[in-house]
Amino acid sequence: MILTKRNICFFGVVTLFILPSFGQAKWEKVAPGVWRTVVGVPDEFTLLTAAGIAPKMEALAAMSEVTFPLDAGQIVGEVTENQTQLRFPLERVEQLFGFGLQFKTVHQRGRILRLHVDHYGNADNGRTHAPVPFYVSSRGYGVFVNAARYIDVYAGTASRRDSPNPPEARDRNTDKDWSANPYSDAVEMRIPSAGVEVFVFAGPTPLEAVRRYNLFTGGGPLPPRWGLGFTQRVHRLFSDEQVREEVDAFEERGFPLDFVGLEPGWLSKSYPNTFVWDPVRFPDPEGFMRDLKDRGVRINLWVNPFVSPDSPIYGDILPFTGSHTVWAGVVPDLTIQASQRIFWGIFEQEHLDKGASGYKIDEVDGFDEWLWPDVARFPSGYSAEQMRQTYGLLVQKQSMDLFRQKNQRTYGLVRASNGGGTSFPYVIYNDNYDHRDFITALINSGYAGVLWTPEARASKTAEEWLRRMQTVVFSPMAMINAWASGTKPWSFPEVEDEVRLMARLRMQMMPYWYSEFAKYHFEGTPPFRGMSLEPGFSDASQLITVSDQDADLETNPYAQATRKEVKDQYMAGEYLLVAPMFAGETSRQVVLPSGKWFDFYTGDYVGDGEIITVTPGLDKIPVFVKDGGIIPMTEVRMHAPKKGEKYTLEVRHYGERPGEYLLYDDDGETFDFEQGAYSWRRLSVTKQRNGAWKGEVSKPEKGKPDNLASISWRFMTVR
Amino acid sequence: MILTKRNICFFGVVTLFILPSFGQAKWEKVAPGVWRTVVGVPDEFTLLTAAGIAPKMEALAAMSEVTFPLDAGQIVGEVTENQTQLRFPLERVEQLFGFGLQFKTVHQRGRILRLHVDHYGNADNGRTHAPVPFYVSSRGYGVFVNAARYIDVYAGTASRRDSPNPPEARDRNTDKDWSANPYSDAVEMRIPSAGVEVFVFAGPTPLEAVRRYNLFTGGGPLPPRWGLGFTQRVHRLFSDEQVREEVDAFEERGFPLDFVGLEPGWLSKSYPNTFVWDPVRFPDPEGFMRDLKDRGVRINLWVNPFVSPDSPIYGDILPFTGSHTVWAGVVPDLTIQASQRIFWGIFEQEHLDKGASGYKIDEVDGFDEWLWPDVARFPSGYSAEQMRQTYGLLVQKQSMDLFRQKNQRTYGLVRASNGGGTSFPYVIYNDNYDHRDFITALINSGYAGVLWTPEARASKTAEEWLRRMQTVVFSPMAMINAWASGTKPWSFPEVEDEVRLMARLRMQMMPYWYSEFAKYHFEGTPPFRGMSLEPGFSDASQLITVSDQDADLETNPYAQATRKEVKDQYMAGEYLLVAPMFAGETSRQVVLPSGKWFDFYTGDYVGDGEIITVTPGLDKIPVFVKDGGIIPMTEVRMHAPKKGEKYTLEVRHYGERPGEYLLYDDDGETFDFEQGAYSWRRLSVTKQRNGAWKGEVSKPEKGKPDNLASISWRFMTVR
Repeated sequence: MILTKRNICFFGVVTLFILPSFGQAKWEKVAPGVWRTVVGVPDEFTLLTAAGIAPKMEALAAMSEVTFPLDAGQIVGEVTENQTQLRFPLERVEQLFGFGLQFKTVHQRGRILRLHVDHYGNADNGRTHAPVPFYVSSRGYGVFVNAARYIDVYAGTASRRDSPNPPEARDRNTDKDWSANPYSDAVEMRIPSAGVEVFVFAGPTPLEAVRRYNLFTGGGPLPPRWGLGFTQRVHRLFSDEQVREEVDAFEERGFPLDFVGLEPGWLSKSYPNTFVWDPVRFPDPEGFMRDLKDRGVRINLWVNPFVSPDSPIYGDILPFTGSHTVWAGVVPDLTIQASQRIFWGIFEQEHLDKGASGYKIDEVDGFDEWLWPDVARFPSGYSAEQMRQTYGLLVQKQSMDLFRQKNQRTYGLVRASNGGGTSFPYVIYNDNYDHRDFITALINSGYAGVLWTPEARASKTAEEWLRRMQTVVFSPMAMINAWASGTKPWSFPEVEDEVRLMARLRMQMMPYWYSEFAKYHFEGTPPFRGMSLEPGFSDASQLITVSDQDADLETNPYAQATRKEVKDQYMAGEYLLVAPMFAGETSRQVVLPSGKWFDFYTGDYVGDGEIITVTPGLDKIPVFVKDGGIIPMTEVRMHAPKKGEKYTLEVRHYGERPGEYLLYDDDGETFDFEQGAYSWRRLSVTKQRNGAWKGEVSKPEKGKPDNLASISWRFMTVR
Repeated sequence: MILTKRNICFFGVVTLFILPSFGQAKWEKVAPGVWRTVVGVPDEFTLLTAAGIAPKMEALAAMSEVTFPLDAGQIVGEVTENQTQLRFPLERVEQLFGFGLQFKTVHQRGRILRLHVDHYGNADNGRTHAPVPFYVSSRGYGVFVNAARYIDVYAGTASRRDSPNPPEARDRNTDKDWSANPYSDAVEMRIPSAGVEVFVFAGPTPLEAVRRYNLFTGGGPLPPRWGLGFTQRVHRLFSDEQVREEVDAFEERGFPLDFVGLEPGWLSKSYPNTFVWDPVRFPDPEGFMRDLKDRGVRINLWVNPFVSPDSPIYGDILPFTGSHTVWAGVVPDLTIQASQRIFWGIFEQEHLDKGASGYKIDEVDGFDEWLWPDVARFPSGYSAEQMRQTYGLLVQKQSMDLFRQKNQRTYGLVRASNGGGTSFPYVIYNDNYDHRDFITALINSGYAGVLWTPEARASKTAEEWLRRMQTVVFSPMAMINAWASGTKPWSFPEVEDEVRLMARLRMQMMPYWYSEFAKYHFEGTPPFRGMSLEPGFSDASQLITVSDQDADLETNPYAQATRKEVKDQYMAGEYLLVAPMFAGETSRQVVLPSGKWFDFYTGDYVGDGEIITVTPGLDKIPVFVKDGGIIPMTEVRMHAPKKGEKYTLEVRHYGERPGEYLLYDDDGETFDFEQGAYSWRRLSVTKQRNGAWKGEVSKPEKGKPDNLASISWRFMTVR
C-alpha cells in the first residue's frame, strides 16, 4: 500500500550534476517558473520521496512564464566530506520569510536555524513541528532544499573574506557605528549529506513564488466541508455515553459542532497503543459513530504511532520496527511496504471501517527525551535523522491514502510535517499556549505550505476565552482542545453569547472558507498568510539598533539589535485582514496595506496604507475588508451541509470599487472533485448607472455540482 | 612554533580496530587504569592533537592498578555513513556527572546534550564554553571521546527494543506508574565522523577516575603564585595614567591586588584587532608595565583572535585565514605553523617582550551570530566544526607556550576550552551573571578538567556585592570584572570592611590554594569539585515525579519529573566545604558528608553526615572543615610573594582527629618546577600524651626551594 521504499523517483529521470569545488549549479527548468539542480549525490530518500506526491503541473503551466530569478553565477554548491554546502546571494534591501513554522519571528534574515523536526521549545532556532527548508524573498523568488536532513541555515549572518559586498572593519573602541552583526550578502546552508536536490521558484511576486512552491508540492488540501465547521475534543477517559452527552449539550445550547475528537482513552491501552477500542468505554464503536454521524457529528481519533506489545499487530510488525522503543512501544518503519500494510491495516479495519472520520496524530515531532534518538536504526536502512524529518509526512500521506481509497475526504491534526507536505489534509498543533505565538505561527504557516491551528484551551478569564475563540474562528480549524480542563464554549457564562455568535459566524462564513481552501488546492494560494505577501503592504519592520557606545555592556555585552516586526495580523483568504485582540488589551494598531480598507462588521471605511488604532470592544475581533471585497456567507447552521444539501448565500460587498469572487462548490465529502466534479461560479458586483450596486452570479455549469438554494446581496459600505 | 599540523600523534602508534556492525571494542591498556580503543577511522585532527600535550605517565603509574571497570562486552561502537555511534552500559543505580561545563545541572543521567563549543545560552543542552566529552560515573569510572566534533549524547535516555533491561509498557489511560521517561540502560552517542578514539578511565572511586583523566590530559595547571592573588579589570578606554590611579586606590584603601586586566582600549583598534598598543592611551607600554610590576602588579591583556586589516600582520597572515570574517577581521587558521608564527609573533614582540603577564582571550566560543559559520573553510582543510571545537584549546596551548619559552608562568582567562585542555593555565568566564549558575559551573568544572571563575561584576545591592565577593575568594581566580560599570571593591561603603576582610582572607589562604593547585598538577585532583567526588557524601538528589494522573496535562502534558539536586555547595581543596550565600537569603541548608565537620571561622563542631541549616550573617560565607583538616595560612599581604621572598605560615588544625597536609613550594614564577625545583613539606598534627595537640613540619629537602620564614600553629577546635 501507498509508499514503496525504493521505487519512487520524484521528478522523472534524475540527472546528476556533480559539481566541482565551489561550483556553480546548472539549472534545469522543470515547470514554468520552477528550476531544479542537483549538487553531489543526493540521498535516495528525501522529503519529496517521503511525501510521495506529484506536482500540479497543469496549474503550474497556467502561471506566467518568467526567467530565472537570481544571478545563477552567484549560487554555489559544494560537497566535501559528506557535507553539502549551499550559498545563495542576497541584496541589501532583501527580506526573507519562511524556513518553516516559526512562532516568534516572521522576518528570517539575520537568523541562524537548524531545521529539525521537533516540538517548538520557545525559541525560533529551526527546531519546530514543520521545519520546511523553503524560504521566500521579498524580491519575489523562493528556494527549496529537498533533503530529509537536519539543515543548518545561515540566513544572511556570516560574512566572507571574498564577498563582493564585505562589511567594513570598524574600531569598536571609538566608532559609534561598530555593529555586533556585520553585513552579510548570502544565505548559506550546510546539509549533512553527500549531495542535495535544490529547487528555485520564481515570482515575480513573493506570493507567486509561494504559489509555485505549493503547486509543485501538490497544492493545498481541500478539506471536507465538515472539516471547516466546529470541533471539540473530549476528556481522554470519556465513554461513548459521555460523548453523546457532550454532543447533546452543544445542541441544547445552540453551538455548532461538526466533529468531536476522542483522546487516548478510546483505546484499550495507550502510550504505547493497541489501536483497538476499549471495550468498556466504547462497547459498540460502530453504532456509536453511526448514531453521531446521523446527527451531523463525526469522530476524530487521537493516535500516536507507537505499538504496544498488547496490540494485535505487535508480532507482525516487530520485524519492521526501529531499534529503539518509545514509551516501550515499537516504532514502525513506515518507509517499508510490509510495515505500512500491517500498521494501516488495523487502522482501516478498526477505525475507518467502523466510521471514524480522521485522526489527530500525536508525538511524531519530538521531544527528544522520548522520541527515538538519532542513534536509532531502522530496518529500511534510512537513518534516524531521515526518519525524524519525515515521519510526520509519512503518517499524513499514508493515512490520507487510506481515506482516499474509500473516496472519503478527511481533515485531521498532526504534530509534525515538512517540505512536500502541502497537500495533506492535516493541521499542525502543539503544547505551547501563547496566544501571540499562535498568531505568528499562523502567519508563518503561509510561507511553509502547512496549516496551523491557534486552538482554544483552558483560559484564565472570560476575556481570554473570548479572545481565543475569536481567533479560532479565523483559522484553518475551529477547534477547542480543552479536553484536559473540560472547558466548554459556554464555560464562561459572561461571554457565552459572544462566543456563540463567533462560532456561528464561522459557520456563516463557510462558503468563503471553502472557496479559499479550493484556491489553495487549485492555485496554491495559502488561505492564511503573512502581510508581506499582500500587495501594497509597506513593511513596517525595522531594526532597532543600540549603539555599542551607549549600551550597558555588562548586561548586553555585544549591544545586539532587536527587530520590531508586524507579526500579529494576517490575511485570511482573498479579502480579509485579521488583527486579533489579546487578553488584557482594549486597543491595538493595525498596519493597512495601500488601498482602501473597510470594517468587516459595519462596512465603514477605516483607512488606506496607514497604521490605524482600533478599539473594537470585547465582542469583536478586528477584521477588515479590501476595497471591492466580496464575502459569500450562508445561513447560521449547526453542522456543515451534507453531500447534496442545498444552502442559501448572502453575498456581502465592501467598499467603493466593483468586485469579483470565485465561489467554489462540489459534493463536500469525496475525491470526485479530482475527476472534475466541481464548479466555480463567478460572483460580481458592479455599479449601475444610477449609482446603485448590482450583484450577479454566473450560471451553474452543466453537469457540475450546484448546491445553491438561493442568493441575496448585501452592500455593506454606504456612502 | 608550538603545534605543527600533521606530525602530532597523540599516543604513539595508532592501531586501528575497524569494528564490524554493532561491534564490540577491543581495549588497549595505555596507562594504569586507562584503556583506549579505536572505532572506525578517526579524524586525524582531534581534541588531543589540538591540545598537543603529553600524559603525565609517571603520575599515572603511581596510581593503583585496577581492572577494566566496565563489562567490555556491553560496549558497542559502530560506523555507518560517516557517523560513529557508541554505546556504554548503565546500571540502575548509576549516576553520571560531567559532559563539560554545565551551569544548571550536576546530575547528567537522563539528559540529551549536543556537545558544541558555544556561549552558555541559559540551558544545559551541551552548548557551553567547554563541552568536554568526558563523563564520570558514580560507579567509579570515566569515559572520554577524543573527537573535535559536535557530539550528540543520550545519557541514559533512549530505550532499545533489544535491551537486556527494557522498560515495561504501561497503559497511560489508567496506570498511575506510567512515566514520560521510561528506563534506559545505556549512554549512547553519535559522532559525525567515520571513526573515533575512545578512552576509559578506571577508579575505583569517581575521584580517581577524574584524576586519571586529568593526569592523562597533562595534569592541572600550576599558576604563578601571583595568579592566585586578586585581580581587577579596568574600563576599556582607560589610559595608562588611569590604570596607575586605580592601582593607587587599591593601595591606599588596603585592598590586595596582583594583576590588572586591560580591556580592548589598550589596542589601537579592536574588534577586529591590530594587536598593537594605542599610542595615545598607552604611549609607553613597556615603562608602564615595568613600573607596575615593581609595585607588585602585573598586566593582563584582553584579546580576541580576529585580525584587523589595519594590523601589521594582516598581509602576512591573510593566506592562512578562514573563508569567513568575524567583525570584518580575518580568522587565523591556528593549526598551520606559518600562521602560528605570524600570529603569535606579534604577541611576543608587542606584549610579552614589553612585560605583559597574560591574556584574557575572548570570543573563541561563539555566539553563532558572529563567529565563523559551520560552512566556513580553513586553509588547513580542517572543518569549521573542528575549528570551533578546538580554537579555545589552540589559543591556550599556543599562548602558554609563548610564556614557557620565556620560562615565565602565566595565568589568564579564556572563553572556550575542551577535552584535553586540563593543563592550560586559563580560567573560563562568560557573560552570564546568575550567581547560582556560577556555583553550579564551579562544581561541574571539577568533572571537566577546566577552571571556572564566578567573577564579581556590577551588583544591585551591597548585600549582593558582598555575597559575590565571598564566592570569588573561594574560587580559582579572585576577580572583579566590573570594568563596564566601574564597580570597585569599595563601591558599597556599607560593606567595604567586610569585602576587604574577604580579599585579605584570599591572600592569607594562598599557601593552601597554591598547594591545592600543585595537587591538581601532580596528582590530578581538581581544586574545586562537586560533592559527589567526596567520600561519605550521600547523594540527596532525588527525582520528583508527578503522576501523570494527577498532572495538569494542559500545562505539563507529559507530566515530566523534575530533579532536586545538590548544586550550590562544593569542595575547595582537600579539606574545605564551601556553601555560598546568595543575595536575599539569610540562611541555607548544607549537606554534610559523613564524618565530623567543623566551622572554618570558629573551629566549632557543626555536624556529621547530616543536613544542617546555617544562618551565617552577612559577613560570612559558610565554610566547613573536615575532621583533622589542616589549612596552611600566611600573613595578610597586598601582593603574592615574589620569587625567593619568604613568608610566614600559620597552620590551622580543625576537629578531633590528627591531621596531615602536604605543603607545596617552588619559586612561584618559572617552569623550573618541571625540572624538579619544588618541594613538598609535610605538616602534621598529632595528639600528645597530655591531650594537647602538637604540630610538626618536615625538614626542607636539600637543594629544594624553601620560602618558609617561620611557622606557627593554631588549633581551632577546643573541646
